[in-house]
Amino acid sequence: MSDEPIARTSRRDFLRSTALAGAGLVAGSATAGASGPDPKIVEVQDWASSFGDPVDATPYGMPIRFESHVVRRNVEWLTESPVSSINFTPIHALEGTITPQGCAFERHHSGAIELSKADYRLMINGLVDTPLVFTFEDLLRFPRSVTTAFCECAANGGMEWAGAQLEGCQYTQGMIHNMEYTGVPLRLLLEEAGVKPEGKWVYAEGADASSNGRSLPLDKALDDVMVAFFANGEALRKEHGYPVRLVVPGWEGNMWVKWLRRLGVYDQAVESREETSKYTDLMPDGRARKWTWVMDAKSVITSPSPQVPIRHGKGPLVISGLAWSGNGRITRVDVSLDGGVNWQSARLSGLALPKALTRFHLDIDWNGEELLLQSRAVDETGYVQPTKDQLREIRGLNNVYHNNGIQTWWVKADGEVENVEVA
Amino acid sequence: MSDEPIARTSRRDFLRSTALAGAGLVAGSATAGASGPDPKIVEVQDWASSFGDPVDATPYGMPIRFESHVVRRNVEWLTESPVSSINFTPIHALEGTITPQGCAFERHHSGAIELSKADYRLMINGLVDTPLVFTFEDLLRFPRSVTTAFCECAANGGMEWAGAQLEGCQYTQGMIHNMEYTGVPLRLLLEEAGVKPEGKWVYAEGADASSNGRSLPLDKALDDVMVAFFANGEALRKEHGYPVRLVVPGWEGNMWVKWLRRLGVYDQAVESREETSKYTDLMPDGRARKWTWVMDAKSVITSPSPQVPIRHGKGPLVISGLAWSGNGRITRVDVSLDGGVNWQSARLSGLALPKALTRFHLDIDWNGEELLLQSRAVDETGYVQPTKDQLREIRGLNNVYHNNGIQTWWVKADGEVENVEVA
Repeated sequence: MSDEPIARTSRRDFLRSTALAGAGLVAGSATAGASGPDPKIVEVQDWASSFGDPVDATPYGMPIRFESHVVRRNVEWLTESPVSSINFTPIHALEGTITPQGCAFERHHSGAIELSKADYRLMINGLVDTPLVFTFEDLLRFPRSVTTAFCECAANGGMEWAGAQLEGCQYTQGMIHNMEYTGVPLRLLLEEAGVKPEGKWVYAEGADASSNGRSLPLDKALDDVMVAFFANGEALRKEHGYPVRLVVPGWEGNMWVKWLRRLGVYDQAVESREETSKYTDLMPDGRARKWTWVMDAKSVITSPSPQVPIRHGKGPLVISGLAWSGNGRITRVDVSLDGGVNWQSARLSGLALPKALTRFHLDIDWNGEELLLQSRAVDETGYVQPTKDQLREIRGLNNVYHNNGIQTWWVKADGEVENVEVA
Repeated sequence: MSDEPIARTSRRDFLRSTALAGAGLVAGSATAGASGPDPKIVEVQDWASSFGDPVDATPYGMPIRFESHVVRRNVEWLTESPVSSINFTPIHALEGTITPQGCAFERHHSGAIELSKADYRLMINGLVDTPLVFTFEDLLRFPRSVTTAFCECAANGGMEWAGAQLEGCQYTQGMIHNMEYTGVPLRLLLEEAGVKPEGKWVYAEGADASSNGRSLPLDKALDDVMVAFFANGEALRKEHGYPVRLVVPGWEGNMWVKWLRRLGVYDQAVESREETSKYTDLMPDGRARKWTWVMDAKSVITSPSPQVPIRHGKGPLVISGLAWSGNGRITRVDVSLDGGVNWQSARLSGLALPKALTRFHLDIDWNGEELLLQSRAVDETGYVQPTKDQLREIRGLNNVYHNNGIQTWWVKADGEVENVEVA
């Protein structure tokens, strides 16, 4: 298993030259057989004849040392400064739908700041009846809601516009995480301040040096946006905005302002640096799409994938992946073994919550031949995840953001997996 | 906030001598007002004028140092040896429904062992057509499912049989956690081996020295039991059974065998030490109830609670708590402010999944008078959480296990909270 990203030239010209099994594969089992006198079974092992760790060993635990490869990773050549950069969730090594905070990707514009609850303030000003300043304790006195949502960087998959670039599902699609949040609906805080009739936009700023200011239309702010304190049951981590961040379900991650310090209500968008020079989609004609907030339906097969080759040879193989949509629930995920010629529906495992990661599985009996694995998500609006070429036809190649095109993994006969594109 | 448990004599004789507000409290808001020139707002802060941590600072992150009190804790006088003991989830400081693995309670019979995937074996033998030994890699080739479930020690609340004993929601009710698991349905592994017609029980053993063997009726084993590898998206932690544990939704935690090494199929229960001398319920007549596997519906208010006093004085107060049932979904949680005289329904926040923790909230306007806070869960079977005295009438006081009685917190006028019982 390789955990280092490999940059290489485009493989857009990759051609399918090998006959693939395709529709002939069916679910199977019978992986295990009775073994001979396995010493791990017939001999008493050390761990079965001695004491393990006591209950006071780790007041707050970390993953076991055997899992030390399951960590956030960054790509040094991708950005200039690590205080204004991004790292990647090891989605290739995770299962289910929840992303642990400890390995959930980070994006900072000026680094992760340390801000205590005592020092925390949130101001609401602008076009409101009563400008307000909340302490952290104040926020804890408002009614709370609980919701699970994915947070995806607009640039997730952005390197793939120019063709398959990075070896590793973590690197190609790992700017995403999915957590259960608890906090106060933003609507309640805005109601407390009283939005004036001419107020149509809410500008959110963080307490870090960058401030990462972003403008939210009032409709969204009053809909499902949360001022969140807890993620996956516990306090937000420092790198995710402790003590307070915005949660903007279904919308691009840069709107999820961390270390939230101010909400300004205005009659128009602020048109800040982050929404003019950045986070707009440069089109082929030189103009830029702006306000492309929603993350459209997408999916990726997390295993097998370039960091998770098939080591066990032929026979039963679990294909596992993630699907999500900023427009609602995932209703179906199709999987192709032959680069998009034939498709079969995967199983949605567990919950398929709106605007949250959804796990899918497909169980096949691998005959040992090459595969061109793809997944294609469909959401409750009927939207079908496009191919990369379909996206490029409209948006060209100048853009970095909002690549939700279908990802292809080339599974070779030896089980190794490579990031490719099919012609 | 006290994080140390205080043992004290019973308060069963506690009498309500103070007039309580009760039904007069209604939800309110208006907690925050415009403040004067707060330096935290009007002055540029250090964290707004310098860089924070870069994206390569913490490949796997931990909670921020300000949250160092949110940890598992054990009670030294409660048990003899820390390798055969238990610690407690800090449920008083958590929100939502997911419990992070890092602070989820542990129960060991001979300590948490370190067992690698390479060393891992799972044997199925006994009344099966084909005895099998699985490696970890073998298990990864079976179809997977994803489910969220609470795991509660049968002894959770056990100290409360004799009356209010421990100060702290963490200590009275913290032998519980709730995670999203991914693994193989046990049914599929049993089908692989082929259970003979006379096989009626599955005996599960762990690889640790204690082995903690427990007998499961075949019906349950074929229903919703999972052989789990992942919890909250990542590998199980060492202390929770890495690399493989049983997940037995709705049933007492000691059935959730960790470091699972063997499943023996038999025509009768093994009647092991763990199901005869332990984990049976001693009744007043000296006989013991056995096979009391299901955890009946229960709830507890996590905040305010003895570790979470009210510091903000009168006005809006968020009452937050957890409810769960081993028999299905929670359908309602009632909250009483006056020790069980008057009840009002709380709001179920987020999902109310079957056999999983459910978060409830009630927003009140506290008038500063004393409260006797209680919560009462109702599940989809119509079962209503009983009072402690109702349980004692049937089960007496000799028993340690299965105390799902209503918990009472005495909120004093100064905001301090004490564990009490109402007469």
